[in-house]
Amino acid sequence: MDLVRIIGFFSAACTTAAFLPQVIKSWRTKKTRDISSGWLGLLVVGIFSWIVYGILREDLVIIIGNVATVAMLAVLLYLKIKYH
Amino acid sequence: MDLVRIIGFFSAACTTAAFLPQVIKSWRTKKTRDISSGWLGLLVVGIFSWIVYGILREDLVIIIGNVATVAMLAVLLYLKIKYH
Repeated sequence: MDLVRIIGFFSAACTTAAFLPQVIKSWRTKKTRDISSGWLGLLVVGIFSWIVYGILREDLVIIIGNVATVAMLAVLLYLKIKYH
Repeated sequence: MDLVRIIGFFSAACTTAAFLPQVIKSWRTKKTRDISSGWLGLLVVGIFSWIVYGILREDLVIIIGNVATVAMLAVLLYLKIKYH
């Protein structure tokens, strides 16, 4: 794997893994009041659009990274609806 | 501008604009307790890495989108430190 792709996967890993501490925190505290619904909604639309862009550009890093982020966002959205 | 680039810029606009309602909410309520520091930290590292990836791939959509997101994150980080 070339260096560019390694940097890409590192980026995707960070921005996806970033949601893990937030999901764990919201899960444990059962509090999501300070998290904006508008942020979550726009992010879901944007991430889906990034996946389409990744497919059209045939960029595997963008596709994999954003599919993984969608999974994290789905959990956070569930917690936001449940505990708001 | 071709369709692929338009979809790319739409994606970048959504994922960047997504932080606006969060920044406004944190600014108004002066409360950021439910927002994870780990999430913010990992996101900053990941977004900087995405900018490097965008430069190496010569992908203007990735570069512009992530530079704009860094600006949003900087404000949110400031609010998190100030109001936590």
